Amino acid sequence: MDRRIDVHLDAKLDLMLERVVDVPPEKVWAAWTQPELVKQWFTPTPWKTIDCAIDLKPGGEFSTVMLSPDGQQFPNQGCILDVVENRRLVWTDALGPGFRPVDSKTPQIGGFTGMILIEPEGTGTRYRAIALHKHEAGRQAHADMGFEVGWGIALDELVALMRSK
Amino acid sequence: MDRRIDVHLDAKLDLMLERVVDVPPEKVWAAWTQPELVKQWFTPTPWKTIDCAIDLKPGGEFSTVMLSPDGQQFPNQGCILDVVENRRLVWTDALGPGFRPVDSKTPQIGGFTGMILIEPEGTGTRYRAIALHKHEAGRQAHADMGFEVGWGIALDELVALMRSK
Repeated sequence: MDRRIDVHLDAKLDLMLERVVDVPPEKVWAAWTQPELVKQWFTPTPWKTIDCAIDLKPGGEFSTVMLSPDGQQFPNQGCILDVVENRRLVWTDALGPGFRPVDSKTPQIGGFTGMILIEPEGTGTRYRAIALHKHEAGRQAHADMGFEVGWGIALDELVALMRSK
Repeated sequence: MDRRIDVHLDAKLDLMLERVVDVPPEKVWAAWTQPELVKQWFTPTPWKTIDCAIDLKPGGEFSTVMLSPDGQQFPNQGCILDVVENRRLVWTDALGPGFRPVDSKTPQIGGFTGMILIEPEGTGTRYRAIALHKHEAGRQAHADMGFEVGWGIALDELVALMRSK
């Protein structure tokens, strides 16, 4: 089976954070796929990720529970779509575990598909975090919620954590 | 990677047609995955399927255009989620090609995930066609639109076609 992926970004619908970081692909992969690691970097401080479940296969669960500084819990449950070890993780909140369609928990975004694309670059990693949306309004809502800054800070935290491993 | 699938049917949310048919798994698979064959059986007569596109990999397109007896066209575009040759095909209309979330073309159903599960049985095939829904209302709408009768007649047409191949 053809294991390449066609990523067709649309500037009106999609968001992307792209950076080269100085930890190798295997460590970026571990940080994204091991719940105990995800909980340590996923949410920019002072937010916390207090729970995480990952069943690393197509149709498997990808879920987090975030805790706001004022103590509110924000559960997110998604479905893993594509797994290529050390290279690519794809999931969506438009489906739940077992591929069942679900209503989005953030109706202003209206569902998104996340892709983490990882490539070796020198001794580090070219890292792309992509969010695909249905509509321009969904992309804009996600941008307004701080996609680029938030995912960028989270990536800084991921790098700091994995450098120590 | 674990290639098993967990199918958790929920009687309130899901629909299933299960039958044993006297064509082998390889022929059922061909009928579901080759556009020129799909067009010959997919829609119960006098409806027709006038176009079909299948890019057989996770994230690939699964699309049909149906033509009603009075000449109206009904395009459906979905995304393939899981492919296990001769055994399992999973797709959804909650995502489009490349895993992008999309609005359902049939809002009364509200998006569904289809699974064709194929197992050898004797010289034939145990065939399960499953539709997973978000809500009870979506399941009911799909049932009222004739899921069981429609998919059953389509299966009869599939079997008749593939017996001749």
